[in-house]
Amino acid sequence: MKEKIAGIETVETTIPSLGEAKIPSPMYRDLAGTAEETFVSDKDGVLIDVDLNNLIKLVKNGQLPPSFELAGPREKLYFDPSKLRCALVTCGGLCPGLNDIIRSVVLALHYGYGVRNIYGIKYGLEGFIPKYKHEVVNLDPSVVGDIHGKGGSMLGSSRGPQDVDEIIDCLERMNIGAIFMIGGDGTLMAAKKLSDAIDGRNLKISVVGIPKTIDNDIHLVARSFGFDTAVDVATQAIVGAHNEAEGYPRGIGLIKLMGRHSGFIAATATLAQQDVNFVLIPEVDFDLDGPRGFLASVEKRLMSRGHAVIVVAEGAGQKLIEAEDDETDASGNVKLKDIGLYMKDKLLNYFKEKGTAVSLKYIDPSYMIRSLAANPNDHVFCSFLGRDAVHAAMAGKTKMIVSNWNNHFVHVPMEASVGKRKQIDPHGKLWKSVLDATGQESMINK
Amino acid sequence: MKEKIAGIETVETTIPSLGEAKIPSPMYRDLAGTAEETFVSDKDGVLIDVDLNNLIKLVKNGQLPPSFELAGPREKLYFDPSKLRCALVTCGGLCPGLNDIIRSVVLALHYGYGVRNIYGIKYGLEGFIPKYKHEVVNLDPSVVGDIHGKGGSMLGSSRGPQDVDEIIDCLERMNIGAIFMIGGDGTLMAAKKLSDAIDGRNLKISVVGIPKTIDNDIHLVARSFGFDTAVDVATQAIVGAHNEAEGYPRGIGLIKLMGRHSGFIAATATLAQQDVNFVLIPEVDFDLDGPRGFLASVEKRLMSRGHAVIVVAEGAGQKLIEAEDDETDASGNVKLKDIGLYMKDKLLNYFKEKGTAVSLKYIDPSYMIRSLAANPNDHVFCSFLGRDAVHAAMAGKTKMIVSNWNNHFVHVPMEASVGKRKQIDPHGKLWKSVLDATGQESMINK
Amino acid sequence: MKEKIAGIETVETTIPSLGEAKIPSPMYRDLAGTAEETFVSDKDGVLIDVDLNNLIKLVKNGQLPPSFELAGPREKLYFDPSKLRCALVTCGGLCPGLNDIIRSVVLALHYGYGVRNIYGIKYGLEGFIPKYKHEVVNLDPSVVGDIHGKGGSMLGSSRGPQDVDEIIDCLERMNIGAIFMIGGDGTLMAAKKLSDAIDGRNLKISVVGIPKTIDNDIHLVARSFGFDTAVDVATQAIVGAHNEAEGYPRGIGLIKLMGRHSGFIAATATLAQQDVNFVLIPEVDFDLDGPRGFLASVEKRLMSRGHAVIVVAEGAGQKLIEAEDDETDASGNVKLKDIGLYMKDKLLNYFKEKGTAVSLKYIDPSYMIRSLAANPNDHVFCSFLGRDAVHAAMAGKTKMIVSNWNNHFVHVPMEASVGKRKQIDPHGKLWKSVLDATGQESMINK
Amino acid sequence: MKEKIAGIETVETTIPSLGEAKIPSPMYRDLAGTAEETFVSDKDGVLIDVDLNNLIKLVKNGQLPPSFELAGPREKLYFDPSKLRCALVTCGGLCPGLNDIIRSVVLALHYGYGVRNIYGIKYGLEGFIPKYKHEVVNLDPSVVGDIHGKGGSMLGSSRGPQDVDEIIDCLERMNIGAIFMIGGDGTLMAAKKLSDAIDGRNLKISVVGIPKTIDNDIHLVARSFGFDTAVDVATQAIVGAHNEAEGYPRGIGLIKLMGRHSGFIAATATLAQQDVNFVLIPEVDFDLDGPRGFLASVEKRLMSRGHAVIVVAEGAGQKLIEAEDDETDASGNVKLKDIGLYMKDKLLNYFKEKGTAVSLKYIDPSYMIRSLAANPNDHVFCSFLGRDAVHAAMAGKTKMIVSNWNNHFVHVPMEASVGKRKQIDPHGKLWKSVLDATGQESMINK
Repeated sequence: MKEKIAGIETVETTIPSLGEAKIPSPMYRDLAGTAEETFVSDKDGVLIDVDLNNLIKLVKNGQLPPSFELAGPREKLYFDPSKLRCALVTCGGLCPGLNDIIRSVVLALHYGYGVRNIYGIKYGLEGFIPKYKHEVVNLDPSVVGDIHGKGGSMLGSSRGPQDVDEIIDCLERMNIGAIFMIGGDGTLMAAKKLSDAIDGRNLKISVVGIPKTIDNDIHLVARSFGFDTAVDVATQAIVGAHNEAEGYPRGIGLIKLMGRHSGFIAATATLAQQDVNFVLIPEVDFDLDGPRGFLASVEKRLMSRGHAVIVVAEGAGQKLIEAEDDETDASGNVKLKDIGLYMKDKLLNYFKEKGTAVSLKYIDPSYMIRSLAANPNDHVFCSFLGRDAVHAAMAGKTKMIVSNWNNHFVHVPMEASVGKRKQIDPHGKLWKSVLDATGQESMINK
Repeated sequence: MKEKIAGIETVETTIPSLGEAKIPSPMYRDLAGTAEETFVSDKDGVLIDVDLNNLIKLVKNGQLPPSFELAGPREKLYFDPSKLRCALVTCGGLCPGLNDIIRSVVLALHYGYGVRNIYGIKYGLEGFIPKYKHEVVNLDPSVVGDIHGKGGSMLGSSRGPQDVDEIIDCLERMNIGAIFMIGGDGTLMAAKKLSDAIDGRNLKISVVGIPKTIDNDIHLVARSFGFDTAVDVATQAIVGAHNEAEGYPRGIGLIKLMGRHSGFIAATATLAQQDVNFVLIPEVDFDLDGPRGFLASVEKRLMSRGHAVIVVAEGAGQKLIEAEDDETDASGNVKLKDIGLYMKDKLLNYFKEKGTAVSLKYIDPSYMIRSLAANPNDHVFCSFLGRDAVHAAMAGKTKMIVSNWNNHFVHVPMEASVGKRKQIDPHGKLWKSVLDATGQESMINK
Repeated sequence: MKEKIAGIETVETTIPSLGEAKIPSPMYRDLAGTAEETFVSDKDGVLIDVDLNNLIKLVKNGQLPPSFELAGPREKLYFDPSKLRCALVTCGGLCPGLNDIIRSVVLALHYGYGVRNIYGIKYGLEGFIPKYKHEVVNLDPSVVGDIHGKGGSMLGSSRGPQDVDEIIDCLERMNIGAIFMIGGDGTLMAAKKLSDAIDGRNLKISVVGIPKTIDNDIHLVARSFGFDTAVDVATQAIVGAHNEAEGYPRGIGLIKLMGRHSGFIAATATLAQQDVNFVLIPEVDFDLDGPRGFLASVEKRLMSRGHAVIVVAEGAGQKLIEAEDDETDASGNVKLKDIGLYMKDKLLNYFKEKGTAVSLKYIDPSYMIRSLAANPNDHVFCSFLGRDAVHAAMAGKTKMIVSNWNNHFVHVPMEASVGKRKQIDPHGKLWKSVLDATGQESMINK
Repeated sequence: MKEKIAGIETVETTIPSLGEAKIPSPMYRDLAGTAEETFVSDKDGVLIDVDLNNLIKLVKNGQLPPSFELAGPREKLYFDPSKLRCALVTCGGLCPGLNDIIRSVVLALHYGYGVRNIYGIKYGLEGFIPKYKHEVVNLDPSVVGDIHGKGGSMLGSSRGPQDVDEIIDCLERMNIGAIFMIGGDGTLMAAKKLSDAIDGRNLKISVVGIPKTIDNDIHLVARSFGFDTAVDVATQAIVGAHNEAEGYPRGIGLIKLMGRHSGFIAATATLAQQDVNFVLIPEVDFDLDGPRGFLASVEKRLMSRGHAVIVVAEGAGQKLIEAEDDETDASGNVKLKDIGLYMKDKLLNYFKEKGTAVSLKYIDPSYMIRSLAANPNDHVFCSFLGRDAVHAAMAGKTKMIVSNWNNHFVHVPMEASVGKRKQIDPHGKLWKSVLDATGQESMINK
């Protein structure tokens, strides 16, 4: 859900290509009783900004509005399917839908184009590096047919970067023509470096990214797979926290939800299960202490209503946690101190000092959520994403990700998306709805 | 999910209004530590068509592309909240999310605007008519607080039209200023007639429709509430049918799903649970008999694969069911013969005549689906829909429905939507994906 | 749940045996830090009747109360595991837990005893008969490891008897020493005949039955697998029917649940989801017409409370359906006319004649329930059942079923159980609780 | 599930009574077309031990085996329903089914006996004490009708003891004749003290306990409510941990489950979701270090199989956590150090020192489980428990708990149960099945 109609900055929308697509696509289907088939053309564009006023300004200036290339099957291919060898790799944290993506890519390559050599790289980027000795998995419909019923990734994953040259060495040795990289911002950054290095070696390898972020925070990606499933299950934690909070005198239910840089899961789950009184997200600053601060606000509610339910996103309130020395995890992300446990301590100490007995229950459902199988909505979404990634690669497109924008699947250059974050607009519709649902007020001392 | 980028015909997009909005909105929120508040203006438009090529054509002709008015809170209101009396009514078949909509409308009126007189009309349009003697329900947050956990409608519903004048008499007696009508195409048609008659009496009553169709087939409404929940649960029927089909020699699992005029539930559920081999929908014609017909196709699959799973949408294959005399139901819809039971008989007879023993299991989950509570995704969606309906009514808008288009909530004139159907494009992305997932071919004899 | 403490008639409890068990069991486990291992002895008996008063009577007469042999691993085996070849077959209708049983039997044979030749017979008894040409499946842990997550039976099933001699011919050709037959009353009857014929040929083949009845109606089996799952899901149909009934003026929700000869599912689901007003089961007679009959009772409730929820078990009210000619299905069971559709018609006609508009919704969730995967409770139960069946067979026991009685797994001779039915006691605790929950009264005209 | 047939020590089975029951019960139901009604007599006994061999020994010695009084409605009551005032209180931690019990007790009192004064005491024992100022809740069918769909307790709860005299003062002031106390071992201990003090004051107040323990560890209670629901949901945590463990090189999934003194949840959930490799429970000792210790065992598995899933019950390995000063919580329970976090640290340190990179994910679903609504199976169970508690109190029984034993609901004197624990027998069937399912061996260094 986009926040409001807002001008998108000028973005690069041209999709790099490995070369001219000349090979006729084998896709042809006798549809609905007719022989018609609709391929998608590179000239089909999806407007990025649907704001009428922004459009009027552009048109007055004689400009055309920016658009993304529409995803879908092309009439001409760059690769000869009978000779193409493809690889898939899943990187970073688990997310509902990984197996759906793997399945969809493999089925589209196999049945849609007749590609017969498809390799699964085990355990993320580690799988390219000889010293880890991870075996390669041969993928075909019999292997992937039922995997979407399970959470996790059948290929496994790992965190952290690996040497780009070693990765390309591996791709060359395996004679890979297209690599599908499923991962988050770190992975897409790696994919971009990989593409540049592939160019440097004058190789013809298509690198197509499929953006994975349970937090739903990748730039120029309106919706990412697994997010709907995550919200679905996060609501169960809210129900539990609410029952615990209501169940005791001055009961507090404190839930930490995923959201390293963006509070989409926290905000959306709050709207889906409207039992929450306070939501803390990275995008909205708050004070801990002071008369209007978080602790005093919780106290006020406990005194007036007897209980409080609090959702805190993983990345909220980072200013509070004085990082003595900044740590980074294996993927190079700055390691966040655990705000959930921090808040639990702060709340307990605050009320202890006040001599107010409270009953606080802390719930952290993160690993129960990430490891789930996709729900039906995400099954459908992943099915499209995987197929469109295949269409793009077959046409020789590269250095791009498959995205969903204005309800269409589109091609977005890695260049345009990587390294930026999608965040909740604190003045937008989503956050205002959260404030309506929770009744919470600003927790900044003036 | 829109099918493909397609030109939308010229549509009426101007929203009728009861008069000038002069009363300042009481909505004001100290957001995120600042005093800023973003009201939405009637000039905020959402482009209807995101196809770049269509836009270029228009611009070349010096035209501006059509857009829908953006939904959201207005700075000036037409009604004085302290004096306004509102009514809600739910009509037609049950649909997941009805209680969410009621709750969202009531909370927005009460907390957002301070409206204190909100009335629930019982059992659909019957509730307006004195002879039925249905009592009116006073609605406030204490009444609606927990209703969204339950399926059905707390107000009840009924099918069929009622006399327009009697309805307006009732509205006048109750001194209603805004009526929220939650219902399907029939209800919206009634709402339009009602509005016209209100004009005829020179009354100032805002009529705002909230489109309800579990089939997701209302024109100019990209997504309707309850649809996601319906697909969610329909997949369970597919799982069951698949297990039954695989469980016996020449096993057939036959599932009838909702979809009177459009096969969106059948198609989407098939993509969400890819165990289906044949999907029959109203939009795609097929022959029953003949060498390429449905029966022969099922036989071919039974012989080669040993089992078959078939999904048939309620409105598929109507040409087959020769209606000796056309029947209509209480709402005036043409009463469809039950295609599910028809197909069951046809299949059983076909194989009986061939002397082939089959094991056919028939599943019709319709009433288990319609009566469900909304899933979290629909909870969120309904929460927005209800709130935006309230914003529109408070600003004096009328003869409109709240819709979701290009991921934005917008106002659509009843004029533009009513009486038309959204359908699956047999050459579009959705149906092609279904064909990929099922492997089914055209079942038309040439 | 047993109905009340009741005297069990004299039952045969001696388990037939193929011969002396002389081979030491390979099972040995260094338990909990000690070397102790507790095998179960044939002398371990589980009292059948826990009624103190019944016991006192027996003891006064100098009698010992009847008891079932305790299930579990024996110290000495009849079969040499390294030479034993086993077969499994699943027969009749699907039931949650079939795959769990298959898995548990295979894992116990493989890991517990080292048996390496385990064969799955496809599609029930058909699988033994050459003319059907069903292939045999080799079963080992890699094949069955994940099957319990799926409903249905990985071996498939079929209904109806097959020639006993052909079955034994097949067992001889395959050199099977132990056959595990998973099925309902018809299958167990077939298993008994098979055993007798095996005796007649002087063969040494252990026949162990694992009773399957989603209706929970097998004699001397306190609980059958799949029943808990069935009740679990049947409650969802009740929720739906209740929402539909409440949703319309004079709404009726009519649910048909499984229960051919016994109303356990109908009664237990009613207690689990107490929204039901009328429960009709085979064990309790009722009149349709007349002042106290069913139709008048429903009418009375509609008039006083506005809606009614009705659960009818499959085998209820059979006296009403005059069978012009008795039909039997492939398994030789008398084919019941569909009481659900019959009641639907009767209700609609009754109110039509009375000129009372009602809104009746009919739900038949049977095939969605039977085809489900087991719930966690049934997973655990099946895990025990399968293992104890293996222990029994390895010890050379035959013509028996594995049962659960007074919370213990026991051996019950087929002789004692087959051909009788467990039913609800209309004067017992379960039915009285149902009457409390529904408020329904006797529907017999005096 | 009882472990094995074992001799039960001599137990007190006589139920204390407030006096002679002389008032005829108003319960009468025209059952199944007849006028018969079966009350239960105090002479109906349920044998405690179903072991045949134990019985033979007793009979040889001329003894009768011990039995529990059967629960159910009595023909004569001690209390006059029209004058009786009852109270309910829920104490200690949340548990699925609390609201079901409240509902069942209220409905049985109201509809079954016509009791009209039923009071809910808020927030556990605190609710009796004036200084806390918790209001009393009037309970009737309209208040409790729908509460079982929600988790938690509508009355709230609290931990810790309160002054017995103050509680009795409150009961006297309110003129309570029967108090239903729903709680765990601590609460039942308090109930016993309360009963003794009531005797001391020569009051006629029936105290009936309904044992609540999600851990399923109350002595002489074969099954406690909420346990089945807890196992149900605990399996989801195991699924998640398994996917996380398999998803990374040397992945470890570590789940802490409830079980302070007994590992029933850990063991049963492991059987229900057989993805677990190590289960640690309070009843089975293990070493952390050393060649056969836990850490080395996990390492061995990681090296051979690449991943490990570990379930640790809350009360396992307490010897490892050297309690510098013993802490007790508000209820006087010894406060356990958190074994889950302890094990997490130990594992991480062990592999860090070895230089082995592992990926450990820790899941603690406790508060998500305790706060759930009951599943259908527990709905049914609670429905019986509550009703039988009412029958007992009406008959003037006191100082007893309602229990389920050998599949019957029975009366157990508090005297016999309180202060003892039910535990898993490390040589019994349950634990052996767990060892079969996990493949784990003894982790004691010899």
